[in-house]
Amino acid sequence: MNMPRPGVGEFDLIRRHFQRPAHPQAPGVALGIGDDCALLVPEPGHTLAVSTDMLVEGRHFLAGAEPTHLGHKALAVNLSDLAAMGARPLGFTLALALPEANEHWLAAFAQGLFALADAHACPLVGGDTTRGPLNLCITVFGQLAPGQALRRSAARPDDDIYLSGRTGEARLALALLLQEPWAVQACGAQALEQHPQLQQRLDQPTPRLALGRALAGVAHAAIDVSDGLAADLGHILAASGVGAELDLSALPLAEGLQPLTAARRLQCLLNGGDDYELVFTAAPQHRATVATAAQTSATPVSRIGRITQSPGLRALHPDGSSHSIEAQGFDHFG
Amino acid sequence: MNMPRPGVGEFDLIRRHFQRPAHPQAPGVALGIGDDCALLVPEPGHTLAVSTDMLVEGRHFLAGAEPTHLGHKALAVNLSDLAAMGARPLGFTLALALPEANEHWLAAFAQGLFALADAHACPLVGGDTTRGPLNLCITVFGQLAPGQALRRSAARPDDDIYLSGRTGEARLALALLLQEPWAVQACGAQALEQHPQLQQRLDQPTPRLALGRALAGVAHAAIDVSDGLAADLGHILAASGVGAELDLSALPLAEGLQPLTAARRLQCLLNGGDDYELVFTAAPQHRATVATAAQTSATPVSRIGRITQSPGLRALHPDGSSHSIEAQGFDHFG
Repeated sequence: MNMPRPGVGEFDLIRRHFQRPAHPQAPGVALGIGDDCALLVPEPGHTLAVSTDMLVEGRHFLAGAEPTHLGHKALAVNLSDLAAMGARPLGFTLALALPEANEHWLAAFAQGLFALADAHACPLVGGDTTRGPLNLCITVFGQLAPGQALRRSAARPDDDIYLSGRTGEARLALALLLQEPWAVQACGAQALEQHPQLQQRLDQPTPRLALGRALAGVAHAAIDVSDGLAADLGHILAASGVGAELDLSALPLAEGLQPLTAARRLQCLLNGGDDYELVFTAAPQHRATVATAAQTSATPVSRIGRITQSPGLRALHPDGSSHSIEAQGFDHFG
Repeated sequence: MNMPRPGVGEFDLIRRHFQRPAHPQAPGVALGIGDDCALLVPEPGHTLAVSTDMLVEGRHFLAGAEPTHLGHKALAVNLSDLAAMGARPLGFTLALALPEANEHWLAAFAQGLFALADAHACPLVGGDTTRGPLNLCITVFGQLAPGQALRRSAARPDDDIYLSGRTGEARLALALLLQEPWAVQACGAQALEQHPQLQQRLDQPTPRLALGRALAGVAHAAIDVSDGLAADLGHILAASGVGAELDLSALPLAEGLQPLTAARRLQCLLNGGDDYELVFTAAPQHRATVATAAQTSATPVSRIGRITQSPGLRALHPDGSSHSIEAQGFDHFG
């Protein structure tokens, strides 16, 4: 149902901010924006990987969020899903509900969006724009050689567990933005100014696409950390019917997290969420190959534990003690 | 950013209502819901068609809309884009923002959604669920043999113009629901009860997939009528650099529209919107082929005009007079 209103502003808006010349490095797109459908042509014999994420104001980002960062993040969280599958980006669609047609907002949003899209040769191929409470829905498409997908269900007992980058900074930045007392008391009211890295990790996550592609055909299972390391590793364990031991001393610790109490630090590391790092498993005989993948993709990778036959997720403390971890990932309808 | 909240309800919700056994007629899906990405395998050599549509409460449907109808319509408007391209459905993703996790609503929505999905062997392959103002974003995927896409830019001078089904009923139903005086005065306060077809056309549009596929490789240009016949035909004319003459006496008239004044009737027919019929063009020598396509797809098709070299859209009246039509399609940011 379309409420009757005259005008052609919608189409103008879209054209001005989102229609661009074809990307020279995007040969997989036969037809982009402007028809009923976009037409994509994956390389012959390749499998198509598809993922969709919806970002809602007040839930996935704060009201008044900087639109350049929002454009980056909306695409980044989707590209992160392609990375976790080992796929190469082909393109994306954007559906956008906006409370008003704000030129400044659209220009800034498009800038952040296209900077990341161009960096990964991932063109916008179609979309929809409407008026409504701010809502960003992106669907990404990627391609994979047959049999190379990094599935959640592929972890095997005795696999090593690896983590790209480090977790926890996005959660701490959010706590500081929301002025949660435990964060402000530990880090000080100026922490976000003193450690700009913290907020950058929240606002502009880096999708680990090069690493994911280098791991395709090498690693067994992979997932990206959006709900928290423990929760997302838990999805691998559940899908693979295995358990895991995490070596807490192997988890890389960002400088910004050091003022926290040990308990809060652990909570940020394991249950923080919004990290968009990859956690993945690989057979021990592939340690050198994983190291090469990390090197060629210029991505820090840490070996943080191993998969076990027995179910459950246990954390090994440096003193040799251990405790069972219950995943406490974010839940939109808990 | 994920606001910190514990629980696992989201995953349960999705599983209960949206995770289903693999569709036996959907061989194009290698991996469905439950991983970072879905994996699709189009037939070798085929092109992938992609479209996305976002439906917002109060804009595309009224607050309190019947969720079964909403499930049907959210998918139907997307399938209609595949139909307009001549593509065969492969699958779709659903991103859903809900103000609350209402079991009854979800069950009814899923029922309407899957009834249509099953009818077209178009499985749900992935999605996202979050809390927020009601918003439905579906992205559909289809496949096409190479070179068979029905593009907006392919209309040629002297092509016949065709319309599937008929336009105007959805617009009249909306006017009656909103109690717009011109509609209530002409049709009476009981019109929706007397002509249930009217509201069905608004709530449960029929995507013309079989017709679209039968036209692939036969018709030149095609588009689905979402903004109004004049506006959407106008998109074909603009993209193809041509004009058109519409024969008003050839436009099929629904019984429900007969009580309207001639001016209102014409407005419903030409500028109503929300019809999800196909308007398409084909060379005059293909009239028999188009008739066969209509017959094999069991879809009524009317020849309603012809493409002209000179630009603009003219309406030919039965008395031989003509007037120029300005497209007045719906605009979300006018």
